[in-house]
Amino acid sequence: MSDVLDLACELIRRRSVTPEDAGCQALLAARLQRVGFRIEHLRHGEVDNLWAVHGAGGPTLAFLGHTDVVPSGPETSWQSAPFEPSIREGKLYGRGAADMKGSVAAMTVALEHFVSTHPGHAGRVALLLTSDEEGPTNLDGVRKVAEGFRVRGERIDWCVVGEPSAKEKLGDLIRVGRRGSLSGTLAVRGVQGHVAYPEKALNPIHVFAPALAALAAERWDQGNADFPPTSFQVSNLNAGTGATNVIPGELTALINFRYCTASRAEDLRARTESILAQHGLNYTLAWNLSGEPFLTPPGGRLRETVVAVCRELCGTEPEQTTGGGTSDGRFIAPLGAEVVELGPVNATIHKVDECVDVAELERLPALYQAICERMLAI
Amino acid sequence: MSDVLDLACELIRRRSVTPEDAGCQALLAARLQRVGFRIEHLRHGEVDNLWAVHGAGGPTLAFLGHTDVVPSGPETSWQSAPFEPSIREGKLYGRGAADMKGSVAAMTVALEHFVSTHPGHAGRVALLLTSDEEGPTNLDGVRKVAEGFRVRGERIDWCVVGEPSAKEKLGDLIRVGRRGSLSGTLAVRGVQGHVAYPEKALNPIHVFAPALAALAAERWDQGNADFPPTSFQVSNLNAGTGATNVIPGELTALINFRYCTASRAEDLRARTESILAQHGLNYTLAWNLSGEPFLTPPGGRLRETVVAVCRELCGTEPEQTTGGGTSDGRFIAPLGAEVVELGPVNATIHKVDECVDVAELERLPALYQAICERMLAI
Ligand SMILES: [Zn+2]
Ligand SMILES: [Zn+2]
Repeated sequence: MSDVLDLACELIRRRSVTPEDAGCQALLAARLQRVGFRIEHLRHGEVDNLWAVHGAGGPTLAFLGHTDVVPSGPETSWQSAPFEPSIREGKLYGRGAADMKGSVAAMTVALEHFVSTHPGHAGRVALLLTSDEEGPTNLDGVRKVAEGFRVRGERIDWCVVGEPSAKEKLGDLIRVGRRGSLSGTLAVRGVQGHVAYPEKALNPIHVFAPALAALAAERWDQGNADFPPTSFQVSNLNAGTGATNVIPGELTALINFRYCTASRAEDLRARTESILAQHGLNYTLAWNLSGEPFLTPPGGRLRETVVAVCRELCGTEPEQTTGGGTSDGRFIAPLGAEVVELGPVNATIHKVDECVDVAELERLPALYQAICERMLAI
Repeated sequence: MSDVLDLACELIRRRSVTPEDAGCQALLAARLQRVGFRIEHLRHGEVDNLWAVHGAGGPTLAFLGHTDVVPSGPETSWQSAPFEPSIREGKLYGRGAADMKGSVAAMTVALEHFVSTHPGHAGRVALLLTSDEEGPTNLDGVRKVAEGFRVRGERIDWCVVGEPSAKEKLGDLIRVGRRGSLSGTLAVRGVQGHVAYPEKALNPIHVFAPALAALAAERWDQGNADFPPTSFQVSNLNAGTGATNVIPGELTALINFRYCTASRAEDLRARTESILAQHGLNYTLAWNLSGEPFLTPPGGRLRETVVAVCRELCGTEPEQTTGGGTSDGRFIAPLGAEVVELGPVNATIHKVDECVDVAELERLPALYQAICERMLAI
């Protein structure tokens, strides 16, 4: 068994359901320390974070990953136990195989090889891991680490995120940015009453309806060369007590923007509130900006290097997109880093029988190592 | 203590929370049987119904009431225990005092006096009671009794409902009809997905919004001389799993029309479905017609008699309205009966510290007895 496959299996055996790390980071830290990395454990709340650095001065190339995984669901739905790695027909099965213990193992092996073969490399290489990427709030993971980095002036110039980015084969797609995510909790107030006495009540469902229609019909922007248009969604809408003869007194809606660099969060907030005000609603709206959009533009040195590595080592012309959900890259980009995401095929992530192609997993360390060499070898 | 007050207290002591009768009907049946009424107990499912008749042939004047009450809520919120009648400052307190054990006691006492003083009255007088007026479905109460009456040709020409109708003092308001109630359970289907991939999903909240706005803005009719305009309300609206990153796959809405005789239920259904179809929705809509509107027009003999009795015995010029919720009168009117509702002040019904004015309660048997005399005395 190859080193990376063996390490990926070791990680899968640890039941690190978010926000648990279950010893993954200690295992990886011990390996990296052995080859000269300086280790910092940055625990916040229930969350383990690891910062391992090799070298000094100059630019910093950091690899970013997470050791936590989403729950397996019913284990009996899996063909093999989700926390017992199993290799069948060229695929490694297990929760986290693709998202993203495979990438984390590949990054670790790549870093070991790179610093062993280039002990006097330029600048610094680093690995940043969290156990709170898959959780609902991501408060104590990379967000908090990045806040600390900003305070102490810890520099990251380039960041390679190991999130599973590929569609069908390794190297066919890399992410060069992500949309921002802006959420809101909207409460529209009416006056509760009995359906037989509508003149004494004010139904918040009825008063909200035209505003909702206007929000759903709004075109927030046209997108741009790098991003699709900003998208608005109401994910939850609730009003009523269950009783069929009561006009409800309040309606709540959870809203979310996935927004591109063509819009600013403050403008989306203002336009939303303007539409609500135009319809004369009595409302409260609590906003939560969970991540601003980021973009590594064409011509950036890391982006061009990752593209070249895909071309040369995978024989692919990688699609360079900004699609998909958010990633922890959103917390690193504001530090001034170029962020690019490169990882295995994501077809099975968060699903039963999650798996990664063994041959592709075994090629992944070479990709990450080539990025290190092109960015930092002297 | 007067006979009617004593009997009302007896009834309040029986904890007949809907659909329980708790022995109320047996008590009343025994009293009426003693003065010559023929008794039928019509039990359906968990519901007790009583049909007590005196006389033969000719027209039938029936009094309609219910022995069940709504729950008391926390008993400690009451100044005196809800099922222990208490008289303070001229008011009788207890659950059901106003809705409608007071009226039921008054009807019983009135009928006893009437048949004792007019043993050879014209036609028939009757009392119809159920223990399922306050429940959510009303399937096994007067609805089922009326179905049986239709089958066996049981005739009711005039029906006096004892629901608490008065606003501030006895005789200031009678109900001469009720709006119909038409309910619907609407499910709008979309395609579930992740908020980051809106192009792969179809948000049923968004597609329903314009249709909802159109439904809320629609003027269904203008009402007419007897009724306010038909009212449409969405009582409950729900979509979403609670997760903030999931576009829901389905939305459900509970809708209700309180409709007047200017519209027909089938037209309201058709117009609703037409609005939904115009917006291209993929939906299902299950309708439930819980009561058609009914109206006892001016000039009807019962209506004019009740008005005259209020004028002469209460000194009031009663408002004659069709407002408020539904009543069991909706099941009797389709048998061809003129239906009028006359009862005590309804200010405290369904509330903590429900009460009825003792002096007004003690005048109520005379009103009901006067109606008997004017309709059936020879
Ligand atoms: Zn991931
Ligand atoms: Zn009632």
